[in-house]
Amino acid sequence: MTEPISSHELEIRVRYAETDAMGYLHHAQYLVYFEAGRTELLRANRLRYRDMEERGLFYVVARIEVRFRAPARYDDVLTLTTSTARLSPVRVDHRYELTRDGKLLTEGSSTLVLVDRDGKPTALPPDLYVILRGTAPT
Amino acid sequence: MTEPISSHELEIRVRYAETDAMGYLHHAQYLVYFEAGRTELLRANRLRYRDMEERGLFYVVARIEVRFRAPARYDDVLTLTTSTARLSPVRVDHRYELTRDGKLLTEGSSTLVLVDRDGKPTALPPDLYVILRGTAPT
Amino acid sequence: MTEPISSHELEIRVRYAETDAMGYLHHAQYLVYFEAGRTELLRANRLRYRDMEERGLFYVVARIEVRFRAPARYDDVLTLTTSTARLSPVRVDHRYELTRDGKLLTEGSSTLVLVDRDGKPTALPPDLYVILRGTAPT
Amino acid sequence: MTEPISSHELEIRVRYAETDAMGYLHHAQYLVYFEAGRTELLRANRLRYRDMEERGLFYVVARIEVRFRAPARYDDVLTLTTSTARLSPVRVDHRYELTRDGKLLTEGSSTLVLVDRDGKPTALPPDLYVILRGTAPT
Repeated sequence: MTEPISSHELEIRVRYAETDAMGYLHHAQYLVYFEAGRTELLRANRLRYRDMEERGLFYVVARIEVRFRAPARYDDVLTLTTSTARLSPVRVDHRYELTRDGKLLTEGSSTLVLVDRDGKPTALPPDLYVILRGTAPT
Repeated sequence: MTEPISSHELEIRVRYAETDAMGYLHHAQYLVYFEAGRTELLRANRLRYRDMEERGLFYVVARIEVRFRAPARYDDVLTLTTSTARLSPVRVDHRYELTRDGKLLTEGSSTLVLVDRDGKPTALPPDLYVILRGTAPT
Repeated sequence: MTEPISSHELEIRVRYAETDAMGYLHHAQYLVYFEAGRTELLRANRLRYRDMEERGLFYVVARIEVRFRAPARYDDVLTLTTSTARLSPVRVDHRYELTRDGKLLTEGSSTLVLVDRDGKPTALPPDLYVILRGTAPT
Repeated sequence: MTEPISSHELEIRVRYAETDAMGYLHHAQYLVYFEAGRTELLRANRLRYRDMEERGLFYVVARIEVRFRAPARYDDVLTLTTSTARLSPVRVDHRYELTRDGKLLTEGSSTLVLVDRDGKPTALPPDLYVILRGTAPT
């Protein structure tokens, strides 16, 4: 059994369209970056979120919080660290840190719940749980 | 039979998130406005695009062109005029004019084609064609 | 002295571009709506945020949290209630409730801090503080 | 004098937030990708658009056209080829091709004009013109 990868670093370059009239990366855009980070954290575990959706498994955001320390600007290259803080068969908590040249710009945390095609809460199938948790579900 | 409404005016206030570091409404956002204009033009004809999608009818953009004359800024109130330039059972051409206090800021045109759930070209059912064209399909 | 208005309701119709492949309003878009709510809450107090920026006063988001109870979809008409929870000369806390037909979909809260053109913390000038607080700064 | 680089390829992975309820990459998002392509084409010529803006040189989009051949989806890896079709001191025409696994999905073209801080048309300074054109301005 392979140890799950619980943290992943993604480089993101800020696009012009993502800035606002203040000249900064718009604060809503951070949530888009965090979502990209979650996609890549799954991929680091050899899972594709698109495959999960095809199996009828959808992670929906139940709560998200972001703390903004310093602004980012157009063309900045940022490093997003996405970590799994807690995983259960029905939900997952992530933490996010966005830095530029080692300086912390933004921190975030989120809780996602797993739902089926009808939006009803469901549980991770054992094969996915094992990959993400490193142990069989009890 | 009711005469179809082929032109509709929609007021839109520019949101902060829609601007960019230049201080202007970002040019990609105009396409989002045009799409909202199409939704309201259908509604003016007592059709809801969401109902069309539930019937398995999807309008996809095949071509779009925009000419930018003057910029818009945060908090500006704009008037978008969306017009049907040409309608057939399988496609529709629209024209767009975006003004602020009567001054033309942007012009656009687009061609949409109708597809089914599988993305295959399809034709407007007679009941919808009559509403949008004012005559029965020949 | 006029009593400040501390709560405002804004109707928002969900645009197609704001949805995602899950068929829901994308979760990042709620922050864009909340920002529009803040603009209108200021306007209800006869202040325009654009005028504040021209005076060199910028509200930047320091923290934001959103709890998602139920999804919204394309073409839904939502009611956003934006309230001032706490106001000081240097920061403001808001609360947000987004409902559809009286059903609560999303709740949020944020803290904004006031900065000058150089991004340095600054305080609301007395004339603005009086309008927003209803009393002179002490 | 170095020959200017007139074409650049950029890999872009489609983010979930960029899709819409139809399950496709939303058509407005292509303009955001094209803009990122222009940034990287400049960088391939050792120019940074952010530096141009600091010198008071702004490229604004005057016209853009997009033809959509086939849809893209979440998590697709796309290749955007951005080319300079024509360059003068006051404007630049670009062409865009977006492919997935060699299949053409979208084509576009745009005209940008150069303006100064006040939005007035201006000309590329000789040092930039030489870099982008490969010859001195006449």
